[in-house]
Amino acid sequence: MGFDDVALPDAGGLSVGILGGTGPQGRGLAYRFALAGHTVRIGSRSAERAEATARTLSELPGVTEGLLTGTGNAGACAADVVIVAVPWEGHAELLASLAPELAGRIVVDCVNPLGFDKQGAYPLTVPEGSAAAQAAHLLPESRVTAAFHHVSAVLLADSEVASLDTDVLVLGDDREAAALVQALAGRITGMRGVYAGRLRNAGQVEALTANLIAINRRYKAHVGVRVTDL
Amino acid sequence: MGFDDVALPDAGGLSVGILGGTGPQGRGLAYRFALAGHTVRIGSRSAERAEATARTLSELPGVTEGLLTGTGNAGACAADVVIVAVPWEGHAELLASLAPELAGRIVVDCVNPLGFDKQGAYPLTVPEGSAAAQAAHLLPESRVTAAFHHVSAVLLADSEVASLDTDVLVLGDDREAAALVQALAGRITGMRGVYAGRLRNAGQVEALTANLIAINRRYKAHVGVRVTDL
Repeated sequence: MGFDDVALPDAGGLSVGILGGTGPQGRGLAYRFALAGHTVRIGSRSAERAEATARTLSELPGVTEGLLTGTGNAGACAADVVIVAVPWEGHAELLASLAPELAGRIVVDCVNPLGFDKQGAYPLTVPEGSAAAQAAHLLPESRVTAAFHHVSAVLLADSEVASLDTDVLVLGDDREAAALVQALAGRITGMRGVYAGRLRNAGQVEALTANLIAINRRYKAHVGVRVTDL
Repeated sequence: MGFDDVALPDAGGLSVGILGGTGPQGRGLAYRFALAGHTVRIGSRSAERAEATARTLSELPGVTEGLLTGTGNAGACAADVVIVAVPWEGHAELLASLAPELAGRIVVDCVNPLGFDKQGAYPLTVPEGSAAAQAAHLLPESRVTAAFHHVSAVLLADSEVASLDTDVLVLGDDREAAALVQALAGRITGMRGVYAGRLRNAGQVEALTANLIAINRRYKAHVGVRVTDL
C-alpha cells in the first residue's frame, strides 16, 4: 500500500476562503487555488486591501476572471474550506471573534508561531500545544485541520513557477475533513497532501518552519519538504 | 547558491562510536557506516551483546572484516564521532555518566523523546527543549550536534536496500562539528546532510518523528524526508 492507494475525495468543486489573504502565504495560496479553478474569497481586516489583492492576482496569467474576490475576514468564512493565514499575533483574537461564522466549516490552520532574533527563527511556546490546537479549542463547532505550513510564499506567488515541488503535511482528528484538505492540496500542481497525524502532533510541524528558514538562510534557497518512499 | 556550493570537510577517515548500538537505529547506522568504510565501535550496556551485533553485521554483504567491534558504552566513546542512539528513558543518566569520556568529542544525538498510546506516537515534553539540548547541558565539554532522527531503522538494516532516499537534518551551534556530521551523513549512499539550524531548533525535528510514524501507519511505508529546491 502506498500514497496512491489511499482514496481521496474529489475537491474540484470546493470554494476556498482565506483569512489573512493579503499576507504573503495567503496571497500565494489564493493565486494557486484560483489557478486550479477554485472560487477564492480573499479575506482581510481591510476589505479594500482584499479587493485590491484580488484584482492584482486576477491579472496574473492563467487565472480565470471572476474566481477571486476580496472581502472582510468575516465574509471569507462563507466558503467550503477556510484557510487561516493570519500572523500568529492576531490568531486567537480573530478566530474567537469568527467562531459563529466558522461553525460547521472545514478550517485549515497554516499559522506558524515563531519568534525571531539575531540567531534566526525559533518556535514560540503555545499553551494549547500548537496554533492548530488553539484553533480547535476556540472553534469547537468547526472541523479544524492543519496544513500548508511549509510552502514557500515566494514560490507560491511566482507566476513563473509552474509546479511546487513539495508535499503538504495535513493534520486533523476529523478524518473526512483531513482527506478533503489532502485532496485540496493535490489541486495545486506539484503538491501532494499527505496525512501526517492528529492535531496533537501539529506543534512540531508548525515549529519545523524555523528549521526551513535556517536552511533557506544557509543555502539561499526556498526549500520545501518531500516525504520519500511514498 | 545551493547545497553543493557549501563546502563540507572530508569525513572519510572518521571513526564512529555508537551508544546504544545494538538497538534498531544504532545497529542500522553501524551497518551503513561500516559499509562506507568507517571503523565503528558498537557500544551497549552489555559488551557481549555489542560483540554479537558486531559479528552479525560483519557477515553482511559488503562489510570489510575488522571494521566493526563491540564494547561497553564507555568503550564506544573512543571515536572521532559518537552517536547517541539509546532509548529516551536512559538518555540523561547514561550521558551524565559518560561526560568525562565524551569530553572534546563530537557527539551526535539522534534520540526522539516520544510517547505512545492507542492513538499512536506523540512528543514528550523535555525540560531542556529537546534530547539534544539535554545532551548539550549534560556534556558541556563535548561538541554536541543532532542528526539521523528520521532515518528508517528498517531500511538502514536491510542489506537489499542499496541507497537511502532521504536527507539528514543536522543541527548544532558548533558550525565546524555540524559540518563534519553533515559530511558523515553524506558517506551513506543516498543521504545528504543538510544544516538545519541551531540546537534550540532540535525539539521539533525530534518530535517530527511522531508524524513520520503516523505517515508510516497510514500508508504502510518506511518514509523519510527530502528537502526540495536544494
